[in-house]
Amino acid sequence: MINVLFAARPERWNTYETPLRDALSAPGIDAHLSQEIAPDQVDYIVYAPNSDVQDFAPFTRAKAVLNLWAGVERITGNETLKIPLARMVDPGLTKGMVEWVTGHVLRYHLGMDRHIVNPGHEWAVHTAPLAQERDVVILGLGALGTACAEVLVALGFRVTGWSRSAKDVAGVSCLHGDAGLAEALARAEIAVTLLPDTPATTNLINAHTLAQMPRGAFLINPGRGPLIDDDALISALDAGQIAHATLDVFRTEPLPQAHPFWAHPQVTVTPHIAAETRASTASQSIVENIRRGEAGEPWLNLVDRDLGY
Amino acid sequence: MINVLFAARPERWNTYETPLRDALSAPGIDAHLSQEIAPDQVDYIVYAPNSDVQDFAPFTRAKAVLNLWAGVERITGNETLKIPLARMVDPGLTKGMVEWVTGHVLRYHLGMDRHIVNPGHEWAVHTAPLAQERDVVILGLGALGTACAEVLVALGFRVTGWSRSAKDVAGVSCLHGDAGLAEALARAEIAVTLLPDTPATTNLINAHTLAQMPRGAFLINPGRGPLIDDDALISALDAGQIAHATLDVFRTEPLPQAHPFWAHPQVTVTPHIAAETRASTASQSIVENIRRGEAGEPWLNLVDRDLGY
Repeated sequence: MINVLFAARPERWNTYETPLRDALSAPGIDAHLSQEIAPDQVDYIVYAPNSDVQDFAPFTRAKAVLNLWAGVERITGNETLKIPLARMVDPGLTKGMVEWVTGHVLRYHLGMDRHIVNPGHEWAVHTAPLAQERDVVILGLGALGTACAEVLVALGFRVTGWSRSAKDVAGVSCLHGDAGLAEALARAEIAVTLLPDTPATTNLINAHTLAQMPRGAFLINPGRGPLIDDDALISALDAGQIAHATLDVFRTEPLPQAHPFWAHPQVTVTPHIAAETRASTASQSIVENIRRGEAGEPWLNLVDRDLGY
Repeated sequence: MINVLFAARPERWNTYETPLRDALSAPGIDAHLSQEIAPDQVDYIVYAPNSDVQDFAPFTRAKAVLNLWAGVERITGNETLKIPLARMVDPGLTKGMVEWVTGHVLRYHLGMDRHIVNPGHEWAVHTAPLAQERDVVILGLGALGTACAEVLVALGFRVTGWSRSAKDVAGVSCLHGDAGLAEALARAEIAVTLLPDTPATTNLINAHTLAQMPRGAFLINPGRGPLIDDDALISALDAGQIAHATLDVFRTEPLPQAHPFWAHPQVTVTPHIAAETRASTASQSIVENIRRGEAGEPWLNLVDRDLGY
């Protein structure tokens, strides 16, 4: 019998209890799943960073913290956490992200907005180039960025990917490091930011990097709010350097009503919906790591605490 | 030496002269291309249905009419046309159509419009289902419908295709005939009409068929204007039976300012941009048929005058 603590806001329990029990029953793990287990009896912690559990010291026999969220920036700095931490890599979340990114890339590519909002009833033909004539740049080639890049390649776009260290993705022009960033930005007719939130990526999209993009570029941020220097983006939009931005994540969420993004005519705000964890597929991912822990197999999606993701 | 007449509006000549000459030079055809050739000296007619040429009787030695447009409904009834007629199947046009259809399907799937137009600055989370939980129905499985269906399948959508006669497309649930139509419509959370304009398809989308769709369905028409009974669609939108429609083609184009589609809050009008013939790829398609004609090989994309497409 292993004890699995569910440490997240109570409303999450309603969503996850049944899918987690279903997933735990599949591989024949003899598990006790509960929101209340004495800390020194807990074997695994299914965890949301906004839960009441912030001190991991009392969990003396716990083998791993299995995060319910893809983002781990609110836990990697926790000094009391000494055991392995796994990010959520939910196949449903990845699919949702790919659909959201593909949809908004096509929206900009096709110039949809001028028809969706057309109060003058103008029959104005603007021929979009074909995807094969359009450069899309994905900043960040992790699980999500790579999945998006692959689908955009399949749709015919010319896709460039940029990452901290060298990567190789079929059909994608892969650049990396500081030197590669300028080259990637220079191609970014449409840029998608899918980097983790780390000290190295904070304000990566700033006055300097925005100026390196082609004039009239489009920016799509489904990654993390702090990737963007908000004031610099507003200035670039006002100057026409960036034509339009669609932002799904923000430093403060919900985005405060006073924030200039809300009223800016060149900004679309979406309410952190690009990638939502889906309880059924996420539960399967969590239980797979429990199965691996019990079998002594390597963890999936382990966080490197030094890198921060 | 063969004589190729270019019979289209003069502005088309500016677009097509260079790409057609380039394409004609490739297979080593010894051709004279001009807008003015004595009718009894013409071997091939590159043709737009709105050209001045409406009487084909004087073209006594012409071997084929090679249409610049995908649509042939303005020529199939021409009694003076006795020689083979080929539709335009332009790979560039097909790609553009796939991109437009995929973009608007994803727009409806993701519920983009509520964020693009959000004057109340509402942070309202509506979780879209995954594509694998969404039914998209393509009415018409010709070259364009099939290409769209294949890409939507690759994106994970549950795709149903409907056609007059039985078809088989990998990954697509294919239905056909009158019996299949009701079944297809019943699944159509998002419907895409890509049928030719024939007597059998006129007003196919009418009060009866709209009522067979799921309540709150989305309609996308990049096919032909007469496929839709406009008044019936307006009624279905007003009643909420159809949530929203994106229409690219109309009985009269440009869509007259007085038409109720323009001002309807549940209609997006796009100005016949879903599929545009691209001069370079279209010229290659035309020249391939000339090459086949000279080599005695079967024509590509021959129109069946009885079926009307």
